[in-house]
Parts: sequence; structure tokens; C-alpha cells
Amino acid sequence: MNPRLQCLRNKLKAQNIEGMIVSNPVNIKYLIGIEAEGILLLTRKENIYITDSRYIEMVQSTLTVIDEIIVNDIKDITEEDYQNFFSFCENVGFEEEYVTYAKYKEYMHKYRINNLIETEQIIEKQRVAKDQEEIDNIRKACQITDNCFEHLLNFIQVGMTEKEIAYEIERYFAKHGASGLAFDSIVASGTNSSKPHAVPTDKAIQVGDVITIDFGCKYNGYCSDMTRTIFVGYVQESIKSVYDLVLKNQKQTLEQMCDGANTKILFKMVNNDFNIHRYELTHALGHGVGLDIHEQPLIGPKKEILLKENMTITDEPGIYIPGKFGVRIEDTVLITKSGCETLTKSNKDYIII
Amino acid sequence: MNPRLQCLRNKLKAQNIEGMIVSNPVNIKYLIGIEAEGILLLTRKENIYITDSRYIEMVQSTLTVIDEIIVNDIKDITEEDYQNFFSFCENVGFEEEYVTYAKYKEYMHKYRINNLIETEQIIEKQRVAKDQEEIDNIRKACQITDNCFEHLLNFIQVGMTEKEIAYEIERYFAKHGASGLAFDSIVASGTNSSKPHAVPTDKAIQVGDVITIDFGCKYNGYCSDMTRTIFVGYVQESIKSVYDLVLKNQKQTLEQMCDGANTKILFKMVNNDFNIHRYELTHALGHGVGLDIHEQPLIGPKKEILLKENMTITDEPGIYIPGKFGVRIEDTVLITKSGCETLTKSNKDYIII
Repeated sequence: MNPRLQCLRNKLKAQNIEGMIVSNPVNIKYLIGIEAEGILLLTRKENIYITDSRYIEMVQSTLTVIDEIIVNDIKDITEEDYQNFFSFCENVGFEEEYVTYAKYKEYMHKYRINNLIETEQIIEKQRVAKDQEEIDNIRKACQITDNCFEHLLNFIQVGMTEKEIAYEIERYFAKHGASGLAFDSIVASGTNSSKPHAVPTDKAIQVGDVITIDFGCKYNGYCSDMTRTIFVGYVQESIKSVYDLVLKNQKQTLEQMCDGANTKILFKMVNNDFNIHRYELTHALGHGVGLDIHEQPLIGPKKEILLKENMTITDEPGIYIPGKFGVRIEDTVLITKSGCETLTKSNKDYIII
Repeated sequence: MNPRLQCLRNKLKAQNIEGMIVSNPVNIKYLIGIEAEGILLLTRKENIYITDSRYIEMVQSTLTVIDEIIVNDIKDITEEDYQNFFSFCENVGFEEEYVTYAKYKEYMHKYRINNLIETEQIIEKQRVAKDQEEIDNIRKACQITDNCFEHLLNFIQVGMTEKEIAYEIERYFAKHGASGLAFDSIVASGTNSSKPHAVPTDKAIQVGDVITIDFGCKYNGYCSDMTRTIFVGYVQESIKSVYDLVLKNQKQTLEQMCDGANTKILFKMVNNDFNIHRYELTHALGHGVGLDIHEQPLIGPKKEILLKENMTITDEPGIYIPGKFGVRIEDTVLITKSGCETLTKSNKDYIII
């Protein structure tokens, strides 16, 4: 059986869960490599993927014997089939953070399940540490993102709007092998940069602006995530000290990130240094990156998580002065045994265009 | 109180539901005009909107006295506040087709609710018939879409890829007042057009191709939806008869659409005519359009729904010859007392570029 599916089955077994309904398409993509509309059933003895006529051909040609998956066309499945899939299963798991209450009730009825059990992100937890194939995909997504940033430095001109820059990012990714945006790009210039979640506007780039560009692409479904804050024409003195403080902390965090590092302590170190300068880290210091742009672990003030080898996470401190400007610097990072490797490699010194 | 909220409250009251938790952002946008991250609580006596510091200012400036909504910052709300919101409420409604099972359990616990009641799309049903403001927005979205199509007819060249055309659609909408795409545009040329849900590829446009372009934008949150199938260089004889059959049925459906028309009969009329020519209508004939691109009613073979004045729906028959080509022609339509008004007005005769 394919190793990811086997690993999940072992974990379910350890919890006395004999079957599982996997509905979240991202989890299905992770487990069996299929991107389609469908549902994956892990029954007692079989792995069954149900989809419709639009996808059958593609699914059949993607799966191999090793996957050990039976593919069914939804139109061939009777009411009785549904009721038999989980016969002799005492407990069947489902994804309670993805499945709606209405679907939950539908599953209970359609599959005649006695105990539909919350699996508490069992697949998401499995996804946290990446294997070599996943790392290669994220590495490639980061490379394309670095190249896009280099292109942007030549592309951006005074007078251009934030929206135009955002479209150029999308266009570049599409032309250079990415399968799409990892998330809606943030291009925030001048005072707009003071909002961490700014949306690109029709504001034109002006001399003296800072521009925060937070963007990433997908490669084979895997995301990259990078932020750079750049300067137009010259660097305002008032911004310099904030930029230096953010960059110092971004780099110090990279030095601390390694197998075993405590996320809460990483967050606190940065926030303490910000506090000394009367600033505050108002969002997470970082988050996991993979098939989803936001995955576990969250590097925040609340939960203590120990980083592990082969996690891919972001390091993205930021300071925002309301109504004035903001600075955020972010890399996607691979945790290794002894430290970490920065997968996004674009320059982080003052960049003046 | 704002009339949409008042109408919902009346409907809830008629079902003995004393309160409601509204979580779906599209329903919140519909009810109170706010686009933010937050939750709307209809308690016994008050309407409460809870959001966070990022949105408070914008929310306060959007709402008026007429809305009768109390805005709260999530960080100011205590555990006790949550428990008190629905005190003296026997039944509290929620959106079972939007809320996950995990959230459902969280709500029960956080708000100390005894009976959390499924509301069976109560707000979605209210959204089906549009008011004047909504119709104006959809009309405007359709206008921009018509203009974009005219632009595309000059823009598309032999050698250009489907993806490039899809990006031009996005770029055009952004430049001409739309707030974004209503859905991912379909640009499917040559044999790709035989797939109803084709995704734009790197295939270049060739002489002899048909191109199916299915696209729409958002204006003030409201969607448009239009499809045209156009010809490159000349019209292949084999395609003509299919095009004529699709267009004839698209126009006949427009003639039948009016207050009181039966959706199942509309579907059957088209499918019967297709069957006579040994084709089949493999997808719905149409669907509601509004804040969501797919809303009620669905014009399909199963459910009988009577169209009503001020519904906005699509009329989109299509025929697909696997491995060869496809033809779909679609308009967004406003149902009136005596008939309907086509809101997308682009030419539907053979268009050769």
C-alpha cells in the first residue's frame, strides 16, 4: 500500500478506529495524489475512492498498483453499497473540522454508521513533517518565488498601482511553471503597508513609499510564502530603525530554528525585543507551509510546540505603525536536525528601486 | 431595523426560533453589508456583530443607526458574555450547511445553548428574490462582462494561449471597476471545449478552433455569469448544427422564463429537443446568481421549483462531443412578472475572429 495511507491506517488502528471517511480534498491529495471531486473511504479491508465521470479517466491513470485503491464511479453505487462499506466497523473516523454539521448527519445515515468519531486532525498532524518529494516541491515553489521577486524589482515603476503589481505576480507564476498562487498576493505601499492583511488597491506607487510584498506560488500543489519590504527612491530615516529591528529578529529566529526548538519561546524572544523598543508582534511569528498555505505548527504566544526535522515553516516578524507604515520580512524555512535551511533566498538588505 | 434583518427575524419567529448565529460571511454581507471576519448574533432583543481590531473601524463606519447593530471587539468579550447572549432563548438557529461539526460543538458549549436548530437555508431562501439594489449590482456586473467580451474579440489572436486569455479577463475586470472574478474563468479551445468544466491550459489558439469562454465578474459583491462559444477563422460545418441547436434552445428557454415557470419543465424541454437529435443535456440548464455564483434555484431534472419575479438566474444549455468539441451559450437573466430580461447582452450569432 502507498506509505502515507499505510501510516494513516496504523495510526487509526492504534486508536481503535476501523475505518475513515476522508472528505477534505487537500488531505485526499496528500494521501493518494489525486486532485478531483471525490471522497476517499478507508474501510476495514479496502481503500475506495468515489468520484464522477468527469474525473474517472484521470484518476485511473494517476493511481498505481502500489496505491491499492479501488476507484468507483458515483453513479454505479447503490444505497446498499453505501450501507455495506463500513459493515463490521465499530468506529469510523471523519474530519470534524472540515465536514459540515449537515454532511455529518448525512454520513451517519447514508453509511449507517453507529459511531462516527472525531479524528482530531490525524491527517493534518501526519502532514506536518514533510517527506523528500514534498520538500522538493516546496523548494521549487520557493525558487520560482525568488525568481519572481527578482523580476518584480525590474518591473515595478513609480506610477504603477498595487493591483498592477499583484497581477504581474500572478502572470509571472503562470508563465514560469507554477500551478497558481499560494494565496492572494499582498502588495501594500505607503500607509497601506501599516495593515498586515492589506489588499492591493488602485493606489499608485510613489517616491518615498515602502512596499510590502507578501506572495507565494504553488508547485505540484505545494506552497511557498515570502515577504519583502522594499523602498522606492530612498529609505526614510524613520523607517530604517524599524526595518533594522525586524530584520535583526528575522535573522535571529533563523539562528534559533532547529529540531527541538520551542515555538512559544521563539515567539517570545522576538516579542520581548520588540517590546523593549515599544513595539509589539501582533500576529504569529510563523506557521507551517505545505499543501495548505497555513498548516500546523503555529508559532505564536499560546501553544508550545517543538519544531521537528523536515517541518517547513515561515519566519515572518513584522511591525506596523498605524496610519504610517509597516515592515514585514518573511522566509519559508526547512527545519533540519541541527538548524534550518532558508528555502526563499532573496536579498533582505535595504532594497531601493 | 434594516429590512433584510427584520425579514429574517420575522421568519425565525414564525418557526419559534428566538435567536440565530450567522457564520457564513456571504449571508452576513447580505444581511448587514459587512465584508469582514466576524460573526453575527441575533439574540432575543439585539443584533450583535463580533469582529476583531482589524475591521472595527471599517465596520463602524459602514453601519448606520437603521441597522440597529451593536459592534463588539472580540477581545472585549468574556466567557460569561458568550454564555449570556442567548439566555432565555429556547431555540437558537445556525447554518448547518456552512458550520463544521467541530464549530457546532464549540457553539453549543461556548454559548451554552440547549437547542441549536438547523435553519434549512433560511437566509439563502430569502436571498433568492433580489431587491432593487441587488439587481442594480448584478446588472452592472453583467455590463462590465459584456464590455470585457467585446474587448476580448479584439484581443484574442491565433497563437495566444488559453491561459493568456484568462489572465486578460482578470486584468480587464480589475481595470474596469469589478471587484474580482465571479469564478475562475473557463477558456477552452479546440477539443478542450468538449469538457464542460475545462481549466485554461497552455494550448495555443489555432485556426479552426471553437473557443468556449465562460466568465463573470463581481460588482459590489454580486456576480455575473456569461458564456459564448466563438470561432477562429471559419465555422466548421460539423459544429454549425450543434451550435444552432444549442442557440435555438437557449433562446426558447428565454421565451419560457417568467414568474411561475416550472424549472423541471424548462430543463425537460431542452433535454427532449437534445434527445431528438441524439444529444443530452449533461448539466443543469441554469442556476441562481447573486452574492454567490451558484445559488438557488437549480434548473435541473429533479426538483420542481417555480420561478419568481426578481430571481436572477442563468440560462446555459450546452452540448459536448467527447474528444471533439463543445458548445455552450449562457446569459444571466432577470425574471419579471410577464417574462424575463436578459442582463448579459452580447451577440449570440456565429462570431468569427
